[in-house]
Amino acid sequence: MKLTIERATLLKALGHVQAVVEKRNTIPILSNVLISAGPDGASFAATDLDIEILETTDASCEGEGLVTAPAHTLYDITRKLPDGADVTLEMTGGDPRLTLKAGRSNFSLPCLPPGDFPVMPTEDLEHRFSVPASELARVIDKTRFAISTEETRYYLNGIHLHAAEHDGRKTLRAVATDGVRLALAEIDLPDGADGMPGVIVPRKTVQEVRRLLEDADDDVEVSVSEGKIRFRLGRAVLTSKLIDGAFPDYERVIPRGNTRVMSVENKRFAEAVDRVATISVEKSRSVKLSLGQDTLTLAVNNPESGQAEEELAVSYSDESFAIGFNARYMLDVASQIEGDEARFHFADAASPALVTDSGDEDALYVLMPLRV
Amino acid sequence: MKLTIERATLLKALGHVQAVVEKRNTIPILSNVLISAGPDGASFAATDLDIEILETTDASCEGEGLVTAPAHTLYDITRKLPDGADVTLEMTGGDPRLTLKAGRSNFSLPCLPPGDFPVMPTEDLEHRFSVPASELARVIDKTRFAISTEETRYYLNGIHLHAAEHDGRKTLRAVATDGVRLALAEIDLPDGADGMPGVIVPRKTVQEVRRLLEDADDDVEVSVSEGKIRFRLGRAVLTSKLIDGAFPDYERVIPRGNTRVMSVENKRFAEAVDRVATISVEKSRSVKLSLGQDTLTLAVNNPESGQAEEELAVSYSDESFAIGFNARYMLDVASQIEGDEARFHFADAASPALVTDSGDEDALYVLMPLRV
Repeated sequence: MKLTIERATLLKALGHVQAVVEKRNTIPILSNVLISAGPDGASFAATDLDIEILETTDASCEGEGLVTAPAHTLYDITRKLPDGADVTLEMTGGDPRLTLKAGRSNFSLPCLPPGDFPVMPTEDLEHRFSVPASELARVIDKTRFAISTEETRYYLNGIHLHAAEHDGRKTLRAVATDGVRLALAEIDLPDGADGMPGVIVPRKTVQEVRRLLEDADDDVEVSVSEGKIRFRLGRAVLTSKLIDGAFPDYERVIPRGNTRVMSVENKRFAEAVDRVATISVEKSRSVKLSLGQDTLTLAVNNPESGQAEEELAVSYSDESFAIGFNARYMLDVASQIEGDEARFHFADAASPALVTDSGDEDALYVLMPLRV
Repeated sequence: MKLTIERATLLKALGHVQAVVEKRNTIPILSNVLISAGPDGASFAATDLDIEILETTDASCEGEGLVTAPAHTLYDITRKLPDGADVTLEMTGGDPRLTLKAGRSNFSLPCLPPGDFPVMPTEDLEHRFSVPASELARVIDKTRFAISTEETRYYLNGIHLHAAEHDGRKTLRAVATDGVRLALAEIDLPDGADGMPGVIVPRKTVQEVRRLLEDADDDVEVSVSEGKIRFRLGRAVLTSKLIDGAFPDYERVIPRGNTRVMSVENKRFAEAVDRVATISVEKSRSVKLSLGQDTLTLAVNNPESGQAEEELAVSYSDESFAIGFNARYMLDVASQIEGDEARFHFADAASPALVTDSGDEDALYVLMPLRV
């Protein structure tokens, strides 16, 4: 087997697939990338047994063949090769190692038998639809920060992706929650997604798809079954297992009927929260919001590090009251607001608040209050 | 006490002094900055008992006074205030806390008695001279990477600064070594430095001075005694204790008589070393250099991760031989070479090599070989 490939093409393919490879592996073959050469070009695959990424590339190949080589080492070498170089990967019958040549550089890398490489079955996943890459990136960004990291609640360790209906409109909806906050973003339901099962896409898969989206600008082909999801982005295909669990009935916790509405300029709000939170208690990061006629006062009182207070002009005309939130959670939400204004919909000091975005009607956030 | 100061001025002063404050302190007052207000403006000081940084600034002060407040908190708040804001710091008789106001932000910070703040005695240090900021930065950069981190050899944990003489020329010389490599950089001896004692400037002091040099472009006033060194950079003054020990007789290990000279294009050399080192053994990072007529071959042989080889055109006309070095040490030196060419002066495979810079005759490096 011998294949010659442009350094930039190889770097992109290895960059896409190697990120799924864990730093340390008890199963040695999982540290390797599977390289396949044939008349149609080359392909590179890596897996952690839950996620597989496969990328096909142009390459000039002499003969067909399969070989596996250390993914991170191969990527690091390629990264350090001069831009514009042609890279030759060669495996001869006699030598059990893969040879890499580029210019006057010459590497021999240890291989493992390609037969040991765990390839995911390439079965068809029955529900298929297309989403513009920018839209997929948008719903991921607006929800992923709320994914739970608590391993005991494994069914919250991902984004719940499902077909939904709201005010008579059918949508493809992404929801994530860790029990103290919730984020929801949706798009019009794409053709073909109608009968799809509600699935939970694991955190690592979300992260890897988001990374692949950096290089994608066309439509992403998504296919889903009960147990797996597949994303086709250009020449990269990511297939992942799904979290086997039931996502909680989140609709119950979205307080769509809250009537006390405060509109605030999002950028100034975020800056003020960040300032007063400088002295907040490390653990709770608690900030008190006191609402009065068109006024919001942010306050922090930390017995150890002092007090902070800042007043903001807002639009608010309901009763005066005070409520507390974790500063970091408010900043996470603020960082996803696209419009000039964030709108807080409150019930009372002890009930969750709904936050909406003046620039995006298809996203919403729920924050549980803290006692202040 | 009340002082009003521009946010940018306060940020710069706090930025300069707070870096010396350790994250955790068993002595609480060491977490604080000492603020002094008076008719001539304000000053800010911080210390870790070994290093003190004091910066004077313009500020409009009502009344005189001293107060201490948490350095990192004050810096973080100031950093988050809007650009262009005026900041008021106030301490009234009744309140034991420092009030900070800017726009609609209002902070109360806990204070500690200024009498407890350990101020270094401001004695005169008898030897004084001036160095252009850029030259001081240059000799620091070219030597600091070789400072030892081994605490048992405390006398190597800094840069040895002293008056030297070489080929009849008097210089101010900086030397650092960790026993396996050595770096030396010098400048013409400034007026006033002639009788200065040879001193060892601790690593943290070197780092803080280098940081202050980022904002300095004039001459730096240096004063030295047996036990202390002081750097005056604009309106910042750093005073530091020195390492109390004897720096070894480093001249003995500089192989100025080595005759086998190889000249190599520095940038290409560094890139090639970095490439082959990708697969080197983690600990030794060993790379073998084989010299032949106008040819250098870099090679790595790692039983676990494979082999690498790269050839470079160099200028070399002596006997063929091979020698090994730690890749990271070669890259550290290469990153400080200003000229197009690095010149390696070898004796034999078991003896230290001297490296000089085609672009800077006032710097040199020594590398101990590894067995390969």
